Amino acid sequence: MYQSLHSIEYLLDHFNQAFTQLHGEKQPAELYIPINYTLSQGGKRMRPLLMLLACDMFGGNIEEALNPAIGIELFHNFTLLHDDIMDQAPLRRGKETVYKKWNTNVAILAGDTIFAQANLFILTSPSRSKTRVARLFNRTAIEVCEGQQYDMNFETSSSVSIHEYIEMIRLKTAVLLAASLKMGALIAFASEQSAKILYDFGIKLGLAFQLKDDLLDVYGSQEKFGKVSGGDIIECKKTFLYLKALELAGNQAGELRQIYTSSALPNKDKVTAVKEIFSSLGIREITQKEIEKYYQEAVDMLASLDIPGTYKVPLQQYTSELMYREK
Amino acid sequence: MYQSLHSIEYLLDHFNQAFTQLHGEKQPAELYIPINYTLSQGGKRMRPLLMLLACDMFGGNIEEALNPAIGIELFHNFTLLHDDIMDQAPLRRGKETVYKKWNTNVAILAGDTIFAQANLFILTSPSRSKTRVARLFNRTAIEVCEGQQYDMNFETSSSVSIHEYIEMIRLKTAVLLAASLKMGALIAFASEQSAKILYDFGIKLGLAFQLKDDLLDVYGSQEKFGKVSGGDIIECKKTFLYLKALELAGNQAGELRQIYTSSALPNKDKVTAVKEIFSSLGIREITQKEIEKYYQEAVDMLASLDIPGTYKVPLQQYTSELMYREK
Repeated sequence: MYQSLHSIEYLLDHFNQAFTQLHGEKQPAELYIPINYTLSQGGKRMRPLLMLLACDMFGGNIEEALNPAIGIELFHNFTLLHDDIMDQAPLRRGKETVYKKWNTNVAILAGDTIFAQANLFILTSPSRSKTRVARLFNRTAIEVCEGQQYDMNFETSSSVSIHEYIEMIRLKTAVLLAASLKMGALIAFASEQSAKILYDFGIKLGLAFQLKDDLLDVYGSQEKFGKVSGGDIIECKKTFLYLKALELAGNQAGELRQIYTSSALPNKDKVTAVKEIFSSLGIREITQKEIEKYYQEAVDMLASLDIPGTYKVPLQQYTSELMYREK
Repeated sequence: MYQSLHSIEYLLDHFNQAFTQLHGEKQPAELYIPINYTLSQGGKRMRPLLMLLACDMFGGNIEEALNPAIGIELFHNFTLLHDDIMDQAPLRRGKETVYKKWNTNVAILAGDTIFAQANLFILTSPSRSKTRVARLFNRTAIEVCEGQQYDMNFETSSSVSIHEYIEMIRLKTAVLLAASLKMGALIAFASEQSAKILYDFGIKLGLAFQLKDDLLDVYGSQEKFGKVSGGDIIECKKTFLYLKALELAGNQAGELRQIYTSSALPNKDKVTAVKEIFSSLGIREITQKEIEKYYQEAVDMLASLDIPGTYKVPLQQYTSELMYREK
């Protein structure tokens, strides 16, 4: 039966083919042109892939998970549309954001429309698991909104603890990965216990993933990561690295805070100065350790799942790719 | 069995009691305080009432429709939150709008959260009709977004036909009333045919309702309607009255357009001048006739429903209240 598992490449292709077919010439054009623009921007497809992998792993029919996987990717795109307004982000995946290219109103409305479409796709889940899948989806949506609110709160808060930061990224990022996995398991009719283990695995994976993102922003090769190195530092974002550094800086904390929030320093000098302090405190290694801690917890959880080890291989492989990525 | 039907007053009280219990002290407060603020503003509760009346009419258990009715009212509040941003409306039901009192970001996110909550409540529909109810709900949500986009398009469009206007209010207003009625019927396990008739009834009712709103804005007693008389004229809104007047004005059309879009005239003078033109063209009577046409079509549809006439009385009564309201 192991031979019948699908490869990551196959699942990705299969998903992308289905997702591309959403493109349509619906009216009013003022609403659907921005929607088509958003949906044709590509992306890692992490959430639908996790859902399909989870479904496949429990012997489910991946065709039954395909439309719900479209739903989860639509939802992800909806959050990006609205987040970009809130964060005033000019670019997304190298292109102008919808609110910049058109206006805020269209970005709000395009997002709302995509969220409703997402629910329609989620509702195509097989009847035996439909209600659980759809409830999990909307409960998760609420948590993602809560996470975004915490993230906005942090912008103006003078003291954010590491604990609060982890809770924020759990809500803003991890729960959606976890829910994608659990929905895939539910569609495959896995036991409630297995689905829960996979959810908890997803939380750990999501935390590790976001911390890795924080790390790559500072230490990733700019070429590979495709973003300006140190972008978070330039934008004074309260990341794990910064909060950890503040915690450990002792007398240096005031200086770090001043440099980090300074708008007087040229970007390059600011990044260099912050990285020097990070370096003196061993922040890179501490963050790397924290990522490995969550990653290991995720791996252990996957190991505890009561199914043959061979069925776990594609998900293990994908998880490992996410963790050892350099972009 | 007729005796067992519930009165409008009972249904309204019953709904309001359940709706009030949503109020909770959830975290983050920065998100839930604006949500509680929005949900405690009251309202006509037209959509949940229509759903409960439809459910009751077909012998359904109104307790099974109560949570879905909360879902539809939550959805309505979500649309108001986002519409107020897009329309830059400072006031809603006499109070500051969320985006004014707090900011646009919170209003976006509060709306998104309420939309997800709405879906959770819709998903409590009894299993026999859950999928159809939830699909109808989200399909309707998409149409409402499309209607809002058309409405925004009209603001900058130089020529809007009556036909386009009716299609806009069908999407923006009527489909949600129609869907509320159909969902109530589906929850009561009415036949597909009956549910469809009730949907079509709701469309006609919705069109008549919106045209009545347009009419009251100009000719309603300010005291009773609770809004500034002529508000639509002051804001240059392309209502049925204005579009009909343009259509009939002939040589006067240019003058009407100039006065209507003028920002030089004092509000009072502008309203008086526009009303004079409306009066010379018989716009009030024409609009009243159009309302009666849609209302009569709705009444005929209700009459064609194959259930005992006595079961239709509360819905007929409520419909008539909506039509003969002066506010």
